Amino acid sequence: MSQVVTFGEVLMRLSPEGNKKFIQSNTLEFYFGGTEINVGISIANFGGSVKHISFISNDFIGDTAIAYLNKFDVDTSSIVRSNRPLGVYFLEVGAVMRPSSISYNRSHSAFSEIQPSMINWEESLIDSEWFHWTGITPALSQGSLDALREGLKLARKKGITVTADPTYRSGLWKYGQDPKEALSELLEYSTIFIGGINEINEVLGTTFSYSNEDFILASKQLIARFPSIEKVFDKIRTSVNSSWHKIRARMWNGNEFRETQDLDITHIVDRIGTGDAFAAGLIYGLQQFDDFKAMEFASAACALKHTYEGDVNFATVKEVMGILEGNTTGRFTR
Amino acid sequence: MSQVVTFGEVLMRLSPEGNKKFIQSNTLEFYFGGTEINVGISIANFGGSVKHISFISNDFIGDTAIAYLNKFDVDTSSIVRSNRPLGVYFLEVGAVMRPSSISYNRSHSAFSEIQPSMINWEESLIDSEWFHWTGITPALSQGSLDALREGLKLARKKGITVTADPTYRSGLWKYGQDPKEALSELLEYSTIFIGGINEINEVLGTTFSYSNEDFILASKQLIARFPSIEKVFDKIRTSVNSSWHKIRARMWNGNEFRETQDLDITHIVDRIGTGDAFAAGLIYGLQQFDDFKAMEFASAACALKHTYEGDVNFATVKEVMGILEGNTTGRFTR
Amino acid sequence: MSQVVTFGEVLMRLSPEGNKKFIQSNTLEFYFGGTEINVGISIANFGGSVKHISFISNDFIGDTAIAYLNKFDVDTSSIVRSNRPLGVYFLEVGAVMRPSSISYNRSHSAFSEIQPSMINWEESLIDSEWFHWTGITPALSQGSLDALREGLKLARKKGITVTADPTYRSGLWKYGQDPKEALSELLEYSTIFIGGINEINEVLGTTFSYSNEDFILASKQLIARFPSIEKVFDKIRTSVNSSWHKIRARMWNGNEFRETQDLDITHIVDRIGTGDAFAAGLIYGLQQFDDFKAMEFASAACALKHTYEGDVNFATVKEVMGILEGNTTGRFTR
Amino acid sequence: MSQVVTFGEVLMRLSPEGNKKFIQSNTLEFYFGGTEINVGISIANFGGSVKHISFISNDFIGDTAIAYLNKFDVDTSSIVRSNRPLGVYFLEVGAVMRPSSISYNRSHSAFSEIQPSMINWEESLIDSEWFHWTGITPALSQGSLDALREGLKLARKKGITVTADPTYRSGLWKYGQDPKEALSELLEYSTIFIGGINEINEVLGTTFSYSNEDFILASKQLIARFPSIEKVFDKIRTSVNSSWHKIRARMWNGNEFRETQDLDITHIVDRIGTGDAFAAGLIYGLQQFDDFKAMEFASAACALKHTYEGDVNFATVKEVMGILEGNTTGRFTR
Amino acid sequence: MSQVVTFGEVLMRLSPEGNKKFIQSNTLEFYFGGTEINVGISIANFGGSVKHISFISNDFIGDTAIAYLNKFDVDTSSIVRSNRPLGVYFLEVGAVMRPSSISYNRSHSAFSEIQPSMINWEESLIDSEWFHWTGITPALSQGSLDALREGLKLARKKGITVTADPTYRSGLWKYGQDPKEALSELLEYSTIFIGGINEINEVLGTTFSYSNEDFILASKQLIARFPSIEKVFDKIRTSVNSSWHKIRARMWNGNEFRETQDLDITHIVDRIGTGDAFAAGLIYGLQQFDDFKAMEFASAACALKHTYEGDVNFATVKEVMGILEGNTTGRFTR
Amino acid sequence: MSQVVTFGEVLMRLSPEGNKKFIQSNTLEFYFGGTEINVGISIANFGGSVKHISFISNDFIGDTAIAYLNKFDVDTSSIVRSNRPLGVYFLEVGAVMRPSSISYNRSHSAFSEIQPSMINWEESLIDSEWFHWTGITPALSQGSLDALREGLKLARKKGITVTADPTYRSGLWKYGQDPKEALSELLEYSTIFIGGINEINEVLGTTFSYSNEDFILASKQLIARFPSIEKVFDKIRTSVNSSWHKIRARMWNGNEFRETQDLDITHIVDRIGTGDAFAAGLIYGLQQFDDFKAMEFASAACALKHTYEGDVNFATVKEVMGILEGNTTGRFTR
Repeated sequence: MSQVVTFGEVLMRLSPEGNKKFIQSNTLEFYFGGTEINVGISIANFGGSVKHISFISNDFIGDTAIAYLNKFDVDTSSIVRSNRPLGVYFLEVGAVMRPSSISYNRSHSAFSEIQPSMINWEESLIDSEWFHWTGITPALSQGSLDALREGLKLARKKGITVTADPTYRSGLWKYGQDPKEALSELLEYSTIFIGGINEINEVLGTTFSYSNEDFILASKQLIARFPSIEKVFDKIRTSVNSSWHKIRARMWNGNEFRETQDLDITHIVDRIGTGDAFAAGLIYGLQQFDDFKAMEFASAACALKHTYEGDVNFATVKEVMGILEGNTTGRFTR
Repeated sequence: MSQVVTFGEVLMRLSPEGNKKFIQSNTLEFYFGGTEINVGISIANFGGSVKHISFISNDFIGDTAIAYLNKFDVDTSSIVRSNRPLGVYFLEVGAVMRPSSISYNRSHSAFSEIQPSMINWEESLIDSEWFHWTGITPALSQGSLDALREGLKLARKKGITVTADPTYRSGLWKYGQDPKEALSELLEYSTIFIGGINEINEVLGTTFSYSNEDFILASKQLIARFPSIEKVFDKIRTSVNSSWHKIRARMWNGNEFRETQDLDITHIVDRIGTGDAFAAGLIYGLQQFDDFKAMEFASAACALKHTYEGDVNFATVKEVMGILEGNTTGRFTR
Repeated sequence: MSQVVTFGEVLMRLSPEGNKKFIQSNTLEFYFGGTEINVGISIANFGGSVKHISFISNDFIGDTAIAYLNKFDVDTSSIVRSNRPLGVYFLEVGAVMRPSSISYNRSHSAFSEIQPSMINWEESLIDSEWFHWTGITPALSQGSLDALREGLKLARKKGITVTADPTYRSGLWKYGQDPKEALSELLEYSTIFIGGINEINEVLGTTFSYSNEDFILASKQLIARFPSIEKVFDKIRTSVNSSWHKIRARMWNGNEFRETQDLDITHIVDRIGTGDAFAAGLIYGLQQFDDFKAMEFASAACALKHTYEGDVNFATVKEVMGILEGNTTGRFTR
Repeated sequence: MSQVVTFGEVLMRLSPEGNKKFIQSNTLEFYFGGTEINVGISIANFGGSVKHISFISNDFIGDTAIAYLNKFDVDTSSIVRSNRPLGVYFLEVGAVMRPSSISYNRSHSAFSEIQPSMINWEESLIDSEWFHWTGITPALSQGSLDALREGLKLARKKGITVTADPTYRSGLWKYGQDPKEALSELLEYSTIFIGGINEINEVLGTTFSYSNEDFILASKQLIARFPSIEKVFDKIRTSVNSSWHKIRARMWNGNEFRETQDLDITHIVDRIGTGDAFAAGLIYGLQQFDDFKAMEFASAACALKHTYEGDVNFATVKEVMGILEGNTTGRFTR
Repeated sequence: MSQVVTFGEVLMRLSPEGNKKFIQSNTLEFYFGGTEINVGISIANFGGSVKHISFISNDFIGDTAIAYLNKFDVDTSSIVRSNRPLGVYFLEVGAVMRPSSISYNRSHSAFSEIQPSMINWEESLIDSEWFHWTGITPALSQGSLDALREGLKLARKKGITVTADPTYRSGLWKYGQDPKEALSELLEYSTIFIGGINEINEVLGTTFSYSNEDFILASKQLIARFPSIEKVFDKIRTSVNSSWHKIRARMWNGNEFRETQDLDITHIVDRIGTGDAFAAGLIYGLQQFDDFKAMEFASAACALKHTYEGDVNFATVKEVMGILEGNTTGRFTR
Repeated sequence: MSQVVTFGEVLMRLSPEGNKKFIQSNTLEFYFGGTEINVGISIANFGGSVKHISFISNDFIGDTAIAYLNKFDVDTSSIVRSNRPLGVYFLEVGAVMRPSSISYNRSHSAFSEIQPSMINWEESLIDSEWFHWTGITPALSQGSLDALREGLKLARKKGITVTADPTYRSGLWKYGQDPKEALSELLEYSTIFIGGINEINEVLGTTFSYSNEDFILASKQLIARFPSIEKVFDKIRTSVNSSWHKIRARMWNGNEFRETQDLDITHIVDRIGTGDAFAAGLIYGLQQFDDFKAMEFASAACALKHTYEGDVNFATVKEVMGILEGNTTGRFTR
C-alpha cells in the first residue's frame, strides 16, 4: 500500500484505572494519543505504510512518545524535536449516565508552538500518496494552522488524496482565528470529507438536520462549495448511555447515498479514538474496496475500537472482515 | 449552607480488585466507608458544610481514616480517639447472578465500644443545623445507641432538622436490645424519614405491601405514630441481576404522593453506598429545592453513585442536575 | 462423597489485565488451568473429594502448579514430575464483537510427552469411584492417548462411573491419530456423555442438526453405538456477543428428554472454564440429585462460572442452589 | 520425617507496597502469618510433615487462610472454625533509620476466644512426634493459655519433643495473667529452649548480660530450673539500621558452647518471620544433623528468610545447604 | 503552635514505579509536590498549623491537589483557582551511579501566570506568624516574583519570622530577571537563611569554599550584607552514589558555629523533598528548641525523609526525636 | 555508525515483581530478552544502527516481540516467522545470599527449530559492517549452529568485524554436538573475543587461572590458535552477594595488557543482561575510541545496566561518558 501521512499533535494521556477519579487514585495508566496518530497507528495495524509528522518534546517523555510510534512501525523520521513539553490530557472514564471527563494541558505544548518553517514538507512527503488532517490541528495555534496549510498545499500540488476530518471542538480555537474561515481554506485542498451534519453546518453556516434527506442535501451543497471534495462519509452514534452505544455510517459519494446497519456496542471498554478508527478504516478501505464496502469496513473498525483500552485501534484487517462476514458473537480465536 | 452533622462508625473496606475473590488475590484495594460518612462526604462533595462525629482508633489506621475525611473537607474536629482498632469489612464483588459478599470485623471495634460520656455533644453540635442518623448505629452496641440518643435529644432541643434512615439489618443487633423499641425511641426525635415498607413495617409491626397505595397508608400511619416526622421518602430498587439495576423514588410529604421515573443502571461499577447517596442527595436537595425536586435530585445522585468505585459518591451538583435535565447519554465533558 | 479422579494437562494461563493486548502490556495475570483440573477444582469447591493425575515440570513453575491444586484441596499425590516444561497458554480477552484470542505453547510440554508407563494406575485409582476425561487429552500425543486408555480400562474394570467430555478441537490432533477412531475407542469405556451435536456427529460421522428432535435421535444412536453410555447431557450457549451469553441445557437419559430454562449472563467476567463448570456441576449433581436436577445444578454452576476471573469455578453448593431457588438478582450476602 | 505440630493464631497481614504508609496508599498486599504457622510452613518447605492446629473464622477470610496453609501442604484437618473474625495486623515497612511499625486487631479474634474444649488433642496429635509452641499464644487470652497447656501436657505424656520459643512481647499479656508464671508452667513441658537472654531473664527473674559467658551461665541456670529442657539455642541480631542486619547463633546443649559466624544481610527484603525461620531451621536441623550443624542450618535459614517478601520462609534444604557450603555470592541458579 | 505560611507552586509528580523508565512503563505513580508544600506538609505532620497559598488549576487535577493538602490538614482557604493547568514534573528514579532525571512542564502553568493582584495578602496572612519562601518561586516568572515580594513586604511589616531557602536552580530563571538581584531584594525581608556556600556565593558574588572556616566567614558576610538575617543554617550531603548518602548540618547563628554528626543513609527510598524536610524540621525546631537542637532535629528529619516514597516527609516529632535519642537501628514499633 | 547485526533467539521473560516467588504471586512482569537482542538494543540506545535476525512465532506473542524491537528502532526486516511458539524463561529474583533462579521453556521454541535455509544471509547482511554472535546460539540446536555458521562465513567473506561472546552454559548443548568443537569452528570466523578464562579454557582445553598473568598467557594462546582473533576483552565480576557486585575489565589487544578500576554496584536493581551491556559498550566503543577507552566505556555501560529493570540497557552515550568523567554520585539531571 502507498504511504499515508498524518500530521498533528501527539498527546500523553493519563488516566486512573477503570472508572476511578484522580482524587481517589495514586497510580495512572498512560498512553499516547492524538486524533491523527490514532488514525495513523490504526492504518499501520491494518498493514498500511504510515508516516507521522509532528513536533515533539526533546526529553525522555518525547523519546517515549516516539518509541510508541516506532513500536507500531509508524515512520517517525520526519518528526522534529522541541524544547517545549509534550501536551498532556487527563481523563476520568465515566460509566452509565456519568460522562467521561477530560482536562487538557496543551495550550503551550511543543506542537502548539510549531512554525511552518520547522517542517521540510518537500522531503517529508516524498513517498506519500495520501494525506490525512483533522480539525484539531488548525484549532491549536496560528503556527499549527500555517504549518498544516503548507503541507496541504504541497499535497494538492502532488495530486495526492487528502482526507479531511474537520471535527469542530469549540473548547479549542482560542488564538483568534475564525474556525469557519480556517477550515474552509483547508477544505479547498481536500478530496474526501469525513464528518457529519455538525461539521457541514459549521463550515457552510447552514442548519441542516440529522435526517438522511438533509445529509444528502448538505453533502451536495458541501461539494458545490468545495469542488475538490468528491465524497462525504458520516458516522452516526446513538447512545443508550456512557457504556452502551450503537454505530452506523452513511455516505454520499457524488452518485449515491448508502447507509450501513447499526452495530450494537453493549459493553464499551474505551470510547476514545473511535472516530479516528472510523477514519482509519475508511482510508484503508478506500484503497482496497468500493465506497460502500470501505464504509462498512470503517464502521466495523470503529465498533471494534470500543473494545480496546487506550487510544489505539488494534483491529487487524482479518478481525474487521470477520465482522463484515457476520461473526459478531465473539467465539474464541485459537 | 448550614452544617450537617453525621454520627457513626468509620469502617475500613478491603476488597480484591474487580470481581476477584480473596482466595485468588494477593492485593486488596482499601477505602473507608460506613453509611453515615458516606452521606457526609457526598454532601461535602455537593459543596455542603459537614461535620462527622465518631470514635476512631489511635493508630496509623485511624490517622489514615481521619486524613480520608479531611481530604473531602469534612470537619473532623469532634472525632475522639480510642485504643481499640478500627472496624473492618471485607468485600467480594459479585456480578450477574453472583451476589456480592461481605464479612465484618466490627463487633469489638473502637466505635462499638463508645460510651455517651465520650462525646461532648454541646460543643460538637454548636454550629450544626441538621443531624443525620441511621439504623446501623443503634444496632452496634448499647453504648452506641446511648450516645446517639444523647445527640438526638440535644438536636431536637436545638430544633434542628433530623433525618432518620433506620435501615434494619438483622445480622447486627446482637447486644440484646430490641430493634423495634430502640428505633422507635430514636424516631421520636426525627423529622424526616428515609426508608421504605420494610423499615416502616419493622417499627410499626405492620405488614404493608410494596404498592404505592400501601406506601401512602404506611406513611400516614408512621406519621401518626411519630408526630415529629413530617415527610417520608422511599427509594425503590429493581434488580435484573447484580450488574444491572433500576432505581426510582417515591414520597409522602403529608400532603401529596409523588414518584420519579425509573433510572436504568445497565452496568453497575460499585453498588456500595448507593442508598447513602440517596440520603445525601435528599438532605442537600431539601435545603435547595421543593420536596419533589429534592427527591429527583436524590434519585439521580443515587444512580450516579453506582458509577464510582468505592463507598463515596463523587457526584457534583452540576453532574446531578445534568441528569435531571435529561443528559443521561454520557457525552464527554471537556 | 466418593473420590473423583481427573487426568489431564495442567497449563499455565498468562493474560494481560482486563481487555488489554500483550502489545500494550507490561504485566500479566497468571492462573493454572486445563479442562480437567477446572472440573476437579470445581468439584473440590463443592466439597467433593478429588484427585488429579498429571505429568508436571520439575521446576519452580511445576511447584507452583502443584501448590495451586493443593490450595483447593485437590489430592496431588499421584502427580509425576517431568524435566520438560509446563505447557503455557496466552490469552487476550475480547469484548462485545471482539473475540478472545488464545495462543498455545504446549506441543512439547511435560504432559504431551507422557508415556503410559509413567502412571501407576492401580495405585492411583485405589480410592476412586468416578473418572472424568475429556477430548483434549487424547488429542495431544500418542503417549497421552495411550495413558488415558490404560486408566479408562482399569476404571471400567473396577466398575466406576466414567464421564466423557469428548470436546473436539481441530487445532489439536497433530500427531497422526484419527480423532474419530481414538474418541470412539475411549467412549467404549464411558458411562455418561457430556457433549452436544458437534461431538456426536464427530464420533458417529452423522449430520444431526441442533434441534431437540435431532438431539434425541442422536443421543439414541450414540447409546446404540456405545452401549456403556447411559445418559447424554448437552449445554447450549447462545451469544449476543463476547460479553453477553445465554446458557441452557438438555438431556436424554435413556428414558426422557428434559431441557432447562435459559440463564441470561448479561455481563461476562471470564468465559474460560465455563464448560468445565457444567461438567463439574453435573458430576457433583448426579451424585446428589436426580438427572434433571443435576442438569439444572450444572447449568447454574456454568452460569456462575462466567462471573469469576480465571479458569476456576469458585461457586459453592449453597450459591448454586440459590440460583435454582430463583435468587438471581444478586442481593448482598452479609 | 516425623510430623511436627504447631499451634497458634493465624493472622492476616496487610501492608502497603514497598515502604509506603497507609496514608499514601490505596492498595495493600496481604499475606497470612503468625509465628507458629511461619515455623510450620518453613518446615513444610524443607520437606517436613507439618500439622497446624488453630481456631479460624468461618467466613471467606478464614477459607482463604486455610487454603493458604493447604497450598504449602500443611495439614489443616485439625483446624476448628469460629464465628469470630480472623485476627489482622497492619504493617508499615521502614527503611534505614525508620523502624517498621505494626498495629494489631487481634484482641477479640477467633483464636483469642479459643477454649480448651474446642480442640480434641488426642485426635489432633495422633501422628505427631514434635510440638512447637511460642510465647505469643499464652499471651493472648486465658483460653489460649489453657488450650496450649492441655496440648503440651499430652505431648509430654506421649514423650514427644517440645520446642519452646517463649518470645516475650510486653504489648500482649493484657488479660491479667502474669507472664513469668504462665511461661514457667509451660516450660515444664518443654525439651528445647529457643530464645536468648531477654527470655531467660524474664522467666528466671535474672539480669544476665548478652555476653557469651553470661549466656552459658544463664542456660545452665535455666536447665537447672526446668529439668525437662536439654538444650538452649539463641539467635543474635546486630542492626546497622532497618535495612541492614547481621545474624549469628549460639548454643549451650548441656555439654558444650558453640557459636556460628556472622551472616551479613546487607539489603533486607522483609524482616518479618526471620526468628520463626530460625526456629524452623532448628527443628528441621535437629532431626537431621548434630546440634552445631542444626544451629548453622537454622542461622542460614534465618538469613535467607530476610530475602523473601511476606512472612513465609521459602528456602529449601538445598538452598540453605548452599550457604553452609559457602555459596553466599548469589550466582544464578538455572 | 503559631501558623506557618508557605507560598509557592503545587506540582503534580509523575513517575514510573521503582527504577523504571517511562519508555518501559504503562503505569505511573503520582504525588503532589513543590518545595514549599513539602515544607508545609512536613510541618503539619509535626503537628504544626500551616497555611499554603497558591494559584491552582480549576479542573479535577486542581481539585485533587487541594484535596491532597486538605488530607494533611494544611489550610487551603487562601488558594486561588486558575484556568491554566497545574504544573507537572516527570521523574525517572536512578540508582547507584545512575542519576535520577527530571523533566518539567511548568513554564506556562497556573502558578507561573500568577499576578500580585490575585492574592489578598492582608487577609491571607491574618493569623500567620511565620513565612517561608524558597528560590524556586522568584525563578518562575515576573508575576511570581512580584507576588512573593508583596507577601514578604507585608510579613516584615507584621514583624513575623521569615525563613529563606534561596535554592538557586540555573534551569529556571528564564524570564529575564537577574537571579542575584531578585534574590537579594527578597533576602532584605528575611530573618533566617537556609542554604549553603553555593547560595551565599550566588547572592554575594563570592567564591567561598565548602570548609567550615569559609562557611563562618561567608555567613558573617551574608549577615553584614543583609542585616535582617540573624542565623544561617546549612545542610551538607555527601554521596556514595544515587542510593547511598550521608547528611550533616552546620550553622552560624551570629554567636557560635555548631555542626552535627553524619547520618548514614545506606538505602535511599526517595531522594525528593529531603532538603525541604530539613527546612521544615528547622522551622518546627526553632519554635521548640535552641538553635543547635533545632538543627539536629532538622538533620534527623531530613535523614528520615529519605525513607518515605513521594515528596512528603511523614516523620512525626516522636520519630525524629527517636533518632536524636540514638535509636537508629530500626527496631519494630508495635 | 555502520550497521551492527545480531543473530539469536528472542525470549519472553516472565518474573514476579520485586523479590517475589511464583508461588506467592498472581501477576508477572514481562520483557523480551535474549543475549543477542540485549546487545543490539543497547547499541541502538547508544544511537547505533542495528539489525536483529531471528525466527519468531507467528502469533500475538511474536507480534509483541517484534514491536518490542521496533520500539527501540532495531531493524526487524530480516526476521522470519515460525509456527512454533516463542521461547520463554521464568525468573525469580534473589537478594543478598539468595541467588536468582531461572527456568527455561525454549528447547522446542521457534528459534531452536531454525534451519539455515530459512535465512537469506546475502540479503540480510547487505548493509552490515559488524556481526555479533554468542555461545548461546550454537548451544541450542544443530539448526541454529548451522544457521549461525552460514552467517559467519558470509560475514568473514565480506570482511566485516565479528565479535564473539562464546559464553559457555553447560545446561544447554543437549542436542549432541561437542561444545568445544562447535565453538572452535565459529571462532575461526571471529575477530574480537569477549570472554574470560572460563571460555578460553573451554575452547582450548587449558586450565589457566584468573590471574592477570594467566589472562595474558591465555589470550596469547587463544590468538595463536585462532589467528583471525585480534583482541581479547574480559569482564571480571566480584560479588559481595546477589545485591552487591563490583565490576572491572581487562584486555589483551595483541600489544598491551590494560585493566580498569573497580566500579562498585552497591544496590543492584537487575542483574540480567549486564554482560550483554558490556559487549554492547565494547562494540560501540571500539567504533569510537581506542581499545582502552572502549573497554572503560563498556565497563561503565555494564555497571549502569545493573540499575535498569529488565534485560535492556537504557544507558545513553552521555550517561556512560558521565561515569568515565567521574560523575558516579548520582546527582539529579533536570
